[in-house]
Amino acid sequence: MAPRQAHRRARVAGAAIDEPSTELWGPEFAEVARRLLSSAVLCFARNGFHATTTRDVTAGVGLSPGALYVHFSTKEDVLFAVVRVGHERALAELGDQGSGEGAAEEVADLVRRFVAWHARHHTVARICQYELAGLEPDHVECVRELRQQINQVFRRAVARGVDAGVFDVADVDRAARAIISLGVDLVRWYRLDGPDSPDALAAEYAELALRMLGTRPV
Amino acid sequence: MAPRQAHRRARVAGAAIDEPSTELWGPEFAEVARRLLSSAVLCFARNGFHATTTRDVTAGVGLSPGALYVHFSTKEDVLFAVVRVGHERALAELGDQGSGEGAAEEVADLVRRFVAWHARHHTVARICQYELAGLEPDHVECVRELRQQINQVFRRAVARGVDAGVFDVADVDRAARAIISLGVDLVRWYRLDGPDSPDALAAEYAELALRMLGTRPV
Repeated sequence: MAPRQAHRRARVAGAAIDEPSTELWGPEFAEVARRLLSSAVLCFARNGFHATTTRDVTAGVGLSPGALYVHFSTKEDVLFAVVRVGHERALAELGDQGSGEGAAEEVADLVRRFVAWHARHHTVARICQYELAGLEPDHVECVRELRQQINQVFRRAVARGVDAGVFDVADVDRAARAIISLGVDLVRWYRLDGPDSPDALAAEYAELALRMLGTRPV
Repeated sequence: MAPRQAHRRARVAGAAIDEPSTELWGPEFAEVARRLLSSAVLCFARNGFHATTTRDVTAGVGLSPGALYVHFSTKEDVLFAVVRVGHERALAELGDQGSGEGAAEEVADLVRRFVAWHARHHTVARICQYELAGLEPDHVECVRELRQQINQVFRRAVARGVDAGVFDVADVDRAARAIISLGVDLVRWYRLDGPDSPDALAAEYAELALRMLGTRPV
């Protein structure tokens, strides 16, 4: 069933499934746990969270089914690790804000980082968007807080430009949300082997974001 | 379990769950089938497709479990009806194109219709985005074709404006996709009882779309 579903999923979004680097997960996870997380990403992307078994995840790295429970308490715990780290990395990628750069360059830089991250890590980012129904309420709350932090980064940058008279927008919240939508929705269709490299798409979307804010590209 | 999950879901997206009108489904469905579809939308929105039983769907309209099979062959068949009709209505809402209006007004009108439809029917539209993993391959293919038709409507409108010298965009496909992202991604966070009415959001996003295309609002 897995190959058929993988084909199905890939066709839905017009997006390929790419194996994430185990480096993504960082030092908070042991090496085996990192390999299990990358295997889980492939399984969830191919078959969905509900149709994936812990056996699928461990088989992906050549381990016996019980090996998962050395590192994670449940399959949901694995999904939460993927979704939490995915959101944390996207937030961290935005870097330090308010560094003294002009507001237009600041927003352009945020958009470039956010878009390039979502394109480069589109398989993980897609799970961060489409598999939230598998999470427990406390874990959903954690994701919601991370999303609010991401929203606030963009909102503050847009507000600074409005205050400085650089941007011309009717509503700061709507403009910030529209800019975030460009980055988030690309996970629906993006494929690394398509015509748009992460950096090219990032540059294009940074220009579109500045246009939405009523200023010309810097 | 249902109320907890409903609460969870609603919090994820920051979006409320609103019961769709049975009118949405149209004359191809009998009255009972239309009520079953509206019940299914609420069940899928609250608990997800996988956690929903056919018993949940029929109970929502006060019928016995077997009543579903008079109208639909499987639970997947119900999901497909929701997702197919959702996409068909969004496509139909775009109306006749190339009516001789100027390119800017044409794009603005498409964006207003697309955004207002997604806001007004955000509960159905969210299922159209987030529950595709539950569909059979042939049904996914049907959805993919409907999405391509929607993409083409926007793509052609942007291309006409570029040809007419009204729009200034680096890449027609990217610009069209970015505009579609504004409409699609709003289902992630939209709520009818929030600060943005469907029409107000539609007007705002139409202006943002024209800005992305390098022209001023008409």
